[in-house]
Amino acid sequence: MEIEPIRWSDGLLLLLDQTKLPLEQVTVEIDDYQGAIAAIRDMQVRGAPAIGVTAAYAMALAARQISAGSGHDDRPLDRDDFLAQLRQAAEQIGSARPTAVNLGWAVQKQLDLAESVESTREISTRLLEEAKRIHLEDVAINRKMGSHGQELLADGGAVLTHCNTGALATAGFGTALGVIRAGWEAGKRFKVFNTETRPWLQGARLTSWEFQQLGIPSTLLVDSAAGMLMSQGKITCVITGADRIAANGDTANKVGTYTLAVLAKENGVPFYVAAPTSTIDTGMPSGDEIKIEDRPHHEVSEFRGSPTAPPGVDVINPAFDVTPNRYISAIVTESGVVKPPYLEGLMLAVKSAGR
Amino acid sequence: MEIEPIRWSDGLLLLLDQTKLPLEQVTVEIDDYQGAIAAIRDMQVRGAPAIGVTAAYAMALAARQISAGSGHDDRPLDRDDFLAQLRQAAEQIGSARPTAVNLGWAVQKQLDLAESVESTREISTRLLEEAKRIHLEDVAINRKMGSHGQELLADGGAVLTHCNTGALATAGFGTALGVIRAGWEAGKRFKVFNTETRPWLQGARLTSWEFQQLGIPSTLLVDSAAGMLMSQGKITCVITGADRIAANGDTANKVGTYTLAVLAKENGVPFYVAAPTSTIDTGMPSGDEIKIEDRPHHEVSEFRGSPTAPPGVDVINPAFDVTPNRYISAIVTESGVVKPPYLEGLMLAVKSAGR
Repeated sequence: MEIEPIRWSDGLLLLLDQTKLPLEQVTVEIDDYQGAIAAIRDMQVRGAPAIGVTAAYAMALAARQISAGSGHDDRPLDRDDFLAQLRQAAEQIGSARPTAVNLGWAVQKQLDLAESVESTREISTRLLEEAKRIHLEDVAINRKMGSHGQELLADGGAVLTHCNTGALATAGFGTALGVIRAGWEAGKRFKVFNTETRPWLQGARLTSWEFQQLGIPSTLLVDSAAGMLMSQGKITCVITGADRIAANGDTANKVGTYTLAVLAKENGVPFYVAAPTSTIDTGMPSGDEIKIEDRPHHEVSEFRGSPTAPPGVDVINPAFDVTPNRYISAIVTESGVVKPPYLEGLMLAVKSAGR
Repeated sequence: MEIEPIRWSDGLLLLLDQTKLPLEQVTVEIDDYQGAIAAIRDMQVRGAPAIGVTAAYAMALAARQISAGSGHDDRPLDRDDFLAQLRQAAEQIGSARPTAVNLGWAVQKQLDLAESVESTREISTRLLEEAKRIHLEDVAINRKMGSHGQELLADGGAVLTHCNTGALATAGFGTALGVIRAGWEAGKRFKVFNTETRPWLQGARLTSWEFQQLGIPSTLLVDSAAGMLMSQGKITCVITGADRIAANGDTANKVGTYTLAVLAKENGVPFYVAAPTSTIDTGMPSGDEIKIEDRPHHEVSEFRGSPTAPPGVDVINPAFDVTPNRYISAIVTESGVVKPPYLEGLMLAVKSAGR
C-alpha cells in the first residue's frame, strides 16, 4: 500500500493526522491557510519535505480566501491589495515552524509565482496548480534519491535510521527511509534498526509503522541504545534525513542526529544524510546560523496527557541539532550522491536540479 | 526531607515503589524473600546499591522462612538442611537481575555469614543484623563518595547526569547524584541537567523528583539532546553511576551511558563514574564479559499500558551498556577518586575499603 500523507480532493487539503498514528488513521480536512498553519505547528503534518508541500497548498488556500473575500462588493480585485494580503499570509505560513528550510522555500516559490501572474483572478488557480506540481515533483525527487542512495547500502549489512523520513515525512516514498526502501526494492537484504526518537516518538509511532506497511523487517530501540549497537559492530551504516543543510554541509536534523553521527565516527561506521536539494540553504554559510526550534515542554514531561516527570519540572526541548559536515560521509540528493568537500558538491547538486 | 527508599520495620521490609513515583508515593510491604525477588525484578526497587541492600534483607527473610518452616514438627533445625535451603533461596535472589554486581555481592556476603554461624537457630537473627549493617553502611559510603567526588565539580559549571543514582537508587544519599548533592551542600553552585533515561524514565520520574526534594534546580532533557548541549559547550562535566565495574575500569551502567561518554570525549568534557567499591568486580578482567540484561520489550513499545508503536513491532531493550575505561576520566569510590590506569587504582580502592 502506498502511504499518502497529503492529498488534495474536492477543494480540500487532506492530511493523515500524524499525531494519531499508529493507533488511529484519521484524516484532517483543511479548507483555509490558518488550518494548514495549525496542522504544521501541531505536527499533524511533519517532516521537512511534507511541510514544504503543505505550505505550497497553504499558499493556494490563502489565495483562494483572498479571492473570495475581495469578491464581496463586486469591485474588481486590486492587484496590490491582493499581493499585500498574500504576503501577510505567507509570513504567517513561513513562521509556523522555524528550522525546516523547505517551508520557507515553498512559500517563497508561491509568492514569486503570484507576483509573476498578470491577471489577479488567475493567481489562486495558478498557485493550486503549482502546489500540485510541487507535490508530484517531491515524490519523483524522492524516488531519484532512493535510486542514487541505495548504492551506498550493502547487501547483508545493517542500517540504522532516526526519526521518520518516510512517505509520511514527504509527499510520498521518503528520503532516508526511501533510500532504505529503494535498497530493499533493488533486492538487497539488510537489517534495519530504527530509534524511537523522543520526545515525539516519530520512530516508534511512524517509522516502525511504515516499515510494517512496506513489509521490511525492522527493529525498534530507544535512542540511547544506538551507541551500544555501534560499539558491538552491529551497524554498517547510519542514514538520516535533514531539515536544513548549510552550504558547507553542516546539517540540522531531528535532535539526536548529531549524537548518532559522533557515535558513527567513533566506531568507523559511515554516516549518510538523504535530502532533496530544496533542503540545501545555499545562502547559509555554516550550521552555526541555523535557528533551532524549542518545542513545548510538555512534549517531554507528559505522554498523551499523563505526566512523566514531577509537576513544575524545568525542561529544555530542542527539536533539532546540528551535525557538523566533518561527521557526514555523504549527502544523497536527487542530483546524485555528494561527497566531501561539500561546498562545491552541494552547489553543483543544486544547479543540476535546476533550482 | 531525607528520602528513604528502603526501611525495615516490625519484621517487614518496606520499599518505596519506584514504578509509581513521582505521581504516587506508595510503600510496598514485603514479608518473604519471594516478594523481595519480585520487587527487584519488577523494578519497584532499582539501582545497583539499593538492589544490594534489598538482597541482604531478602536473605534474612529467607532465613526466617526456613526457620519457621523447620520448626513445625518440633525436630531441631538440621544445619545442612537449613544451609541447603538458604543456598537455594540465594540462587533465586541472585538471579533476580543479571547485571548489577551488588546483588550477587550481598547474597554471597550473607551466605558466607550464615555458614559461619554456629547455632542454626541464630542464623536468621544474624542475617537481619547484617542486612541492617549493610543498609547503614551504604549510606555512610555514599556520603564519603560525595565528599571525595564533589572536589571534581567546579563552582559555576554545569553537570549532566543520567538515569537515577540518588537516594532512591541506594540506601540513601546516592552515588553520582550524591556527589552533586555534596557539591551543592559544600556551597558550590552549578547548573544541573538530567536525561529522562528511556525507556523506564528513571531520570524524568525519579531524578527530577529527587532534585526537587533537595531544592537543587535541575533541567530535564530527552537522552538524545545531551549531545547538542555538549557540542554547544554548555556542559562542564558528566557524572553517572555504575552497575558493575570490571577490574580494568570498563563500566556497565544504564543504557546510554556509553553514548554520553563518547560525546564527552569528542567535546573535551570530563566523564566521571561514582560507585561504591562493592560495584567493582575484581574477578572480571574487562567489560567484555559483563552480561547485559535484555528487559521486556513492552517497556519500549508501551507507556503505562498504552502502545507507543504499532502492534507486532520487533524491539531490542538492553538495560545497560558498557563504557570502555578509555572514556572515563575518574572513578569516585568511598576510598577516594581513582584516576587511570584503573587496574592498580581500583584494586587499591577495594583493599582500602577493607573488602
